[in-house]
Amino acid sequence: MDYQPINFEEKLLKFSEHWSPKIIAQLNDYHLKLAKVHGEFVWHDHPETDEVFIVVKGQLEILFRDGSVLLKEGEMFVVPKGMEHKPVAENECHVLLIEPAGTVNTGDMKDELTAPNNIWI
Amino acid sequence: MDYQPINFEEKLLKFSEHWSPKIIAQLNDYHLKLAKVHGEFVWHDHPETDEVFIVVKGQLEILFRDGSVLLKEGEMFVVPKGMEHKPVAENECHVLLIEPAGTVNTGDMKDELTAPNNIWI
Repeated sequence: MDYQPINFEEKLLKFSEHWSPKIIAQLNDYHLKLAKVHGEFVWHDHPETDEVFIVVKGQLEILFRDGSVLLKEGEMFVVPKGMEHKPVAENECHVLLIEPAGTVNTGDMKDELTAPNNIWI
Repeated sequence: MDYQPINFEEKLLKFSEHWSPKIIAQLNDYHLKLAKVHGEFVWHDHPETDEVFIVVKGQLEILFRDGSVLLKEGEMFVVPKGMEHKPVAENECHVLLIEPAGTVNTGDMKDELTAPNNIWI
């Protein structure tokens, strides 16, 4: 049988809202999620887990309390668990996130930007 | 301070051998690894874990006992734990692998293609 690849561009056509990661694959008890981001997110952290950001398109800046990192297409960063961070994208940016299933985008913060953590596309 | 992004192209310049994944990042107890592959790998499985393949450049075919999947740049696949597979790349292909730290490229098989699982670049 022909198994089907997971194609990032095809998946990205399936949604348009910002800051609302969509699950595209599961690796053991981890999820791989695509997100479209634009503008400023909220300061938050994930006390229980590291979080991988891979930029698929555009540029993402991640602010920390003591600095920042600028990620371009083909670049990634691992935000250590418990480290406060605030993602910012001046223009729309597409990101692949990898984190344990159930991770909430705003961490322990409840915010209007808190998104569902269980939507598959 | 300026934190440093992990750049796939820069990392790929640091090695040339095939079928020998290099660690570029750690997510909790998982490793993200870049590999250059060309030709046929050996049949093997990973009885304890799923394995993510993301094609960064080129094309990778993964054969299964009952079929196959062809992955192009910007495409990925999760090989389920315990599923026998054989990666094949007609031309050189660059792949991002995600799997638990300590995972061996040939699984339980000992082969001349068995590579170290602890080399960071």
